[in-house]
Amino acid sequence: MKMNFTPGPSQLYFTVEGHLRQAIRSDIASLSHRSKEFEMIFSDTCSNLRELLGIPEGFHIFFTGSATEIWERSIQNLVLSHSLHLVNGAFSKRFYEIATQLGKKATMIEVSAGSGFVDPISIPSGTEMIAITHNETSTGVSLPLDFVHSMKERARDALIVVDAVSSLPFPSFDYSKIDSVFFSVQKGFGLPAGLGVWIVNDRCVAKAESMANTGVSIGSYHSLPTLRANQKKNQTPETPNVLGIYLLGKVVKDMLRRGIDLIRKETEYKSTLLYQALSNHPHLQAFVKEQKFQSKTVMVADCGPHLNRVSEALIKKGLYPGDGYGEFRKSQLRFANFPTHSKEQFELLVDTLENTSIV
Amino acid sequence: MKMNFTPGPSQLYFTVEGHLRQAIRSDIASLSHRSKEFEMIFSDTCSNLRELLGIPEGFHIFFTGSATEIWERSIQNLVLSHSLHLVNGAFSKRFYEIATQLGKKATMIEVSAGSGFVDPISIPSGTEMIAITHNETSTGVSLPLDFVHSMKERARDALIVVDAVSSLPFPSFDYSKIDSVFFSVQKGFGLPAGLGVWIVNDRCVAKAESMANTGVSIGSYHSLPTLRANQKKNQTPETPNVLGIYLLGKVVKDMLRRGIDLIRKETEYKSTLLYQALSNHPHLQAFVKEQKFQSKTVMVADCGPHLNRVSEALIKKGLYPGDGYGEFRKSQLRFANFPTHSKEQFELLVDTLENTSIV
Repeated sequence: MKMNFTPGPSQLYFTVEGHLRQAIRSDIASLSHRSKEFEMIFSDTCSNLRELLGIPEGFHIFFTGSATEIWERSIQNLVLSHSLHLVNGAFSKRFYEIATQLGKKATMIEVSAGSGFVDPISIPSGTEMIAITHNETSTGVSLPLDFVHSMKERARDALIVVDAVSSLPFPSFDYSKIDSVFFSVQKGFGLPAGLGVWIVNDRCVAKAESMANTGVSIGSYHSLPTLRANQKKNQTPETPNVLGIYLLGKVVKDMLRRGIDLIRKETEYKSTLLYQALSNHPHLQAFVKEQKFQSKTVMVADCGPHLNRVSEALIKKGLYPGDGYGEFRKSQLRFANFPTHSKEQFELLVDTLENTSIV
Repeated sequence: MKMNFTPGPSQLYFTVEGHLRQAIRSDIASLSHRSKEFEMIFSDTCSNLRELLGIPEGFHIFFTGSATEIWERSIQNLVLSHSLHLVNGAFSKRFYEIATQLGKKATMIEVSAGSGFVDPISIPSGTEMIAITHNETSTGVSLPLDFVHSMKERARDALIVVDAVSSLPFPSFDYSKIDSVFFSVQKGFGLPAGLGVWIVNDRCVAKAESMANTGVSIGSYHSLPTLRANQKKNQTPETPNVLGIYLLGKVVKDMLRRGIDLIRKETEYKSTLLYQALSNHPHLQAFVKEQKFQSKTVMVADCGPHLNRVSEALIKKGLYPGDGYGEFRKSQLRFANFPTHSKEQFELLVDTLENTSIV
């Protein structure tokens, strides 16, 4: 039995295979995206997501091809000129770079890999959007929710946009403190890649509309007003990843049955297990030193010269870690802690790591 | 046994279910898009496609979320200012509209629904891109290949971009006469929706680069230079629809085994059957009158007041026709004739239509 701990695409949620079989039997994959049946699926998936993530009224759920697309669409629809990016790794930096590629005056506040942000954060006047990466998949740094939520007070006029690609469904956001949050399905939701989920409030839609009214291009089929007009009919502007939207709805329903509180508690438990093992280990250590920044969903271990030995021992047990990202490829391992990863698998992971301490 | 004749999403290719099962067994859906295994899949799918469609060197294959995305990306990457659109239905018109939404000076030459284009076509000077919809899915009009290929001679400086969403793999394009062609996988390839395939030549990539060099925004992660840089490594800029790319490669391989010549011959045979039945039928007729414009892959029947009776008779046999598009919803039926639709199914379809002539 193989268990994939890579942070994304990650192990499929354990119910996906069954849902896929059912989807084939029910002809979901050849369903017209203008049919009543599709509208039901769209509506089910959205209401399940609303329940799981506590998404209030005034927020809307849209589907894209990837979270990378949402980076681009966010800039295109929410920023006339000035965006601010909190950058602490490769993915938060890419969000910033996309803003510059789209010709915006983007500012970044950058800290070194493995670090979070400490106050005071200085927000340039005229900032229209603040991009915050809740969980930096490249380094395993997660920003405390208090910090994320505090942005709103500091910049009332800016839209607060949160990349939660590799943390949801774990974090419990206060939607009165953010304007948009997004993720892709191949991480915490354990689904095949090829679908991004973009959650925005009415302020975001209004901003895009006002930009369009001044003659600025906000794109075409995936502009916020077009997405919103289609979503009102439980439809999408283009032929979407129908199977992906169906599977997401089913997996979220399964998560609802298990209970989001239990999922969150187990996530805490599993992350505590691993961080304790790293802290007790003679050769390994957590890359992120400050506990408040240690991600609970993507945990990064500095392995130094022991990387190959540790990696081999894990793979022998069927436990596949993720490589370190970029420059850390040869010294770090990354471990996803998503809802599909069970307590028992984490106990086996930790046991195996402990045994590699005996040389 | 249900058979879906809707023009897209359409009936799955008959081998998809088996490939999907194999994909799950081989953990394809949780594969990292930066792994060697993914690069192999990417490379296999592209070389299979090259063989099936006869794509020569100097052309490159890229993946997007949908063909709708390719409309937008084509405008963004290939048109600084002036595009020309041949419009004869809802989908060719949407391509034109996207150009205007992106702020381009787009011109359209429009003919009525059900018609093709007749010479002379006047091409405005300064036209950078000519958008031709080879097969108008809304009306069942297909443009003769001679006509498509003749554009190049008339406008040497323009890029010839062909939307073949609902015709490929049937048409055999002369790649020396076009610069780009694209499709989405849920039609002729019989795959789950959520993947667009964008084929462009070096001229297209060079045009995008030259636009970027003058400071024009050509987008970000899905600009042609970025797609090309990643494709050289058999990778994609974002986490793509890995499962979709895998399934496409497998289905194309199956089509290669069957042989593209046989697939094309069978397509001709099946379309002849249906058009003959329509022409002999007392109550039904082909919507497209001129034979040279009659699509072989999406055939549209005018049913007038007989629509419900015909539709019910077909559904009773498990044959599900597509609704007419837009204003023709209550008077027309559309029939996809894709590689997955067998001769036997078309014979049953035609028999059933003939029987509905007896009132």
